[in-house]
Amino acid sequence: MTSVDAAIAYAREHQTQALEDLKALVRIPSISTLSEHQADMRRAAEWIAARLKTLEFERIDIIPTPKHPVLLAEWMKAGPKAPTLLVYGHYDVQPVDPIGLWTSDPFEPTQRGENLYARGASDMKGQLVGLLRAIEALRRTGGLPVNMKFLLEGEEEIGSPNLEAFMRAHQDRLACDLCLNVDSGILAADSPSIGYGLRGLIYFELRLLGPATDLHSGTFGGAIPNPATVLCELIGGMRDKKGRVTLPGFYDHVRKLSKNEREELARVPTPDAWWLKQTGSPALGGEAGYTANERASVRPTLDVNGLLGGFTGEGPKTVLPAKAMAKISMRLVPDQTPEDVRRGMLAYLKANVPAGITYELLEHSACNPAIVERESAAVRAASRALKAVWGKDPLFTRQGGSVPVVALLQDLLDVKVLMLGFGLADDNLHAPNEKQHLPTFYRGTEAFIHFLTGYRP
Amino acid sequence: MTSVDAAIAYAREHQTQALEDLKALVRIPSISTLSEHQADMRRAAEWIAARLKTLEFERIDIIPTPKHPVLLAEWMKAGPKAPTLLVYGHYDVQPVDPIGLWTSDPFEPTQRGENLYARGASDMKGQLVGLLRAIEALRRTGGLPVNMKFLLEGEEEIGSPNLEAFMRAHQDRLACDLCLNVDSGILAADSPSIGYGLRGLIYFELRLLGPATDLHSGTFGGAIPNPATVLCELIGGMRDKKGRVTLPGFYDHVRKLSKNEREELARVPTPDAWWLKQTGSPALGGEAGYTANERASVRPTLDVNGLLGGFTGEGPKTVLPAKAMAKISMRLVPDQTPEDVRRGMLAYLKANVPAGITYELLEHSACNPAIVERESAAVRAASRALKAVWGKDPLFTRQGGSVPVVALLQDLLDVKVLMLGFGLADDNLHAPNEKQHLPTFYRGTEAFIHFLTGYRP
Repeated sequence: MTSVDAAIAYAREHQTQALEDLKALVRIPSISTLSEHQADMRRAAEWIAARLKTLEFERIDIIPTPKHPVLLAEWMKAGPKAPTLLVYGHYDVQPVDPIGLWTSDPFEPTQRGENLYARGASDMKGQLVGLLRAIEALRRTGGLPVNMKFLLEGEEEIGSPNLEAFMRAHQDRLACDLCLNVDSGILAADSPSIGYGLRGLIYFELRLLGPATDLHSGTFGGAIPNPATVLCELIGGMRDKKGRVTLPGFYDHVRKLSKNEREELARVPTPDAWWLKQTGSPALGGEAGYTANERASVRPTLDVNGLLGGFTGEGPKTVLPAKAMAKISMRLVPDQTPEDVRRGMLAYLKANVPAGITYELLEHSACNPAIVERESAAVRAASRALKAVWGKDPLFTRQGGSVPVVALLQDLLDVKVLMLGFGLADDNLHAPNEKQHLPTFYRGTEAFIHFLTGYRP
Repeated sequence: MTSVDAAIAYAREHQTQALEDLKALVRIPSISTLSEHQADMRRAAEWIAARLKTLEFERIDIIPTPKHPVLLAEWMKAGPKAPTLLVYGHYDVQPVDPIGLWTSDPFEPTQRGENLYARGASDMKGQLVGLLRAIEALRRTGGLPVNMKFLLEGEEEIGSPNLEAFMRAHQDRLACDLCLNVDSGILAADSPSIGYGLRGLIYFELRLLGPATDLHSGTFGGAIPNPATVLCELIGGMRDKKGRVTLPGFYDHVRKLSKNEREELARVPTPDAWWLKQTGSPALGGEAGYTANERASVRPTLDVNGLLGGFTGEGPKTVLPAKAMAKISMRLVPDQTPEDVRRGMLAYLKANVPAGITYELLEHSACNPAIVERESAAVRAASRALKAVWGKDPLFTRQGGSVPVVALLQDLLDVKVLMLGFGLADDNLHAPNEKQHLPTFYRGTEAFIHFLTGYRP
């Protein structure tokens, strides 16, 4: 029996323990955005630290930052000639609102059919536990031919405000040959894939101020600019009838898709029916001239994420509100930058906010889009690992979401970043009823085993 | 001494009591929209009923409706040959939110300078108490040459949902020669005026629904129509660059302003500086080609009164929301009707709501605009009364607000409706720090005395 076969056999024999590990970790409500969960954040980091200790990792440190601690650890016993992998991940989860839409308690993992429902089950405690189980299987069967380091933050879901400073301060401990970002996914349970591109993000909050106080809309309506009406008019002007963003210069640096790339994306088995089923949307929409796959991955977007103004209770109130607010974010694609888009937004507001309305534009987060190296030893090893488990070649995809850390890791550490994780698009990330598809969880664990043994730089 | 002079002298001697009456009535927090104030509603009606009893009114009844009771009363001792006036008013007040912006407790009347601050002080307990004091002054000095009836509802601030049915059921008790609507105002403390027109209203709530649940805006943004973005785009399309409403047919029945009427409105002493000062708005705006006075009184409007969708807490959340809502109201002018505007709104939505978004259009209230008779004995008597008190001819104005009951009274009772009240535009109606200007309160009381003695049909 090869060492891979032995590790795979071990993983299969210990699936029950793997499931128990996953349940234990998702039971800890490590919601990074809510200060009342501060103790839970530490418990989650400590749970992982304890597990790394049983795997004989060393220099395991839970290091404070201004908000939530970062976990560092390493296992260097493969020796100085073996490559070193730096695993990036996060132990925090999204809030659970709206709680009323959960079928079961978000922090009491509940199995229904092939899925385990819990906040964080897929994003990304399931990925972390899968990797830990893969390392355990290799260690208990005498394998693990690479050195490994862990960098796990507790602030990914709130935009990683302290990660860059932390990485700069601890750069020496992060030296590696390859970064493995396991905060990732595949196309579907039966469609293994490797994402090689991520969209960037810029997230604004636009606050409009009008009259000094709320006014009677009968007495003053018509003569006084209304911030809520103007807010809608401004946002209404940010896209044209074809669904294209009208901010000045928005498309100037968008890289043209090659024919080859579009053909490859067209092979991704997510037809319109798939998008409709995943979302419950009555119909698809978006930028004219592109498929749903393209619109959600390789084309930039503008979405209103939040709207608030005036009277929002039951019934009517004839108020002309003093202020209104919208959260507006844009997903960016290579080679757009947050700086360019910010400049376009400011120019648009300067040109279009009418007299009588003043505005503030806050920026809550921003990150560059990223394209990672496809023709590399790491991607070839990942491709072989997926084929070994699923029995077919993976598809190459670009993802719609943003993982700011990818650009950060590439830039700060000057290493390649491989994204290898096993979340599914229907896992309800950031939404009620998040879940982990258990057959994919077990397959993902096996794929990690294949990758860790098959990677040669 | 004429009977008018005696009554005026009485009123002046009893100003302290008038102020105490006003304080007593505004201390009762009769907020019609909040069910926890149900007992307060009854207390307010009973306070007025007790006062009418001391004035020897008869048939004083507090009659239940499905929500808040209506107060009826009459004093018919002027005899069958004297005209009968029906006074319309309301004893309910608006809610006090946002409470943090009040300088003093909204239900503990507080005098600062010439003003008494309290919710309802102007809208419209001050008007009611002024009229009651005028009647008292006339009765105590042997006058009051007209018969009087009172119709006071408790639901004006929530759109008078039960008034029409009540009036139909008690139509016999409402028979009169003239209706006196005291829920009204004048231009400014030193500018007596008579409003002869009111805008109508239609108030919608537009609810948009998209995907079945909130989605991750990275994974799905671009391919799935976003109800919050679409809501802004729909509202953004409801007015053009000139501030004109684009709903089909919106202006079809707007009566053209005569040159004469525009000249008369131009004499109203509320220049741009006045509107800026009243509202604290940094600049004026609105439909091109009209003055602020015209925009806020004789031209129709569209205002967003409320907006809600997606994530509205602090910071970012990358959510593509499942739904979004806007409260949108339009002020209407003769001869627009709510029916026409509703038809236009439905046609607009049918033509513009994109695939992937479904909508519901609720209607919270609707009323016709109204123009009351200017060339009438009632208006002439009111005009003389104002001149007697202020020493100058009143201006004739049209008001921006809506008093649905005016059209209802005209239609159901087939009588003329005179609007005669003394609220001021800077009284902060429906807003924090509502107040009554006390010199105007006392002058208004005297004007009521002049009117009640000077009116001959």
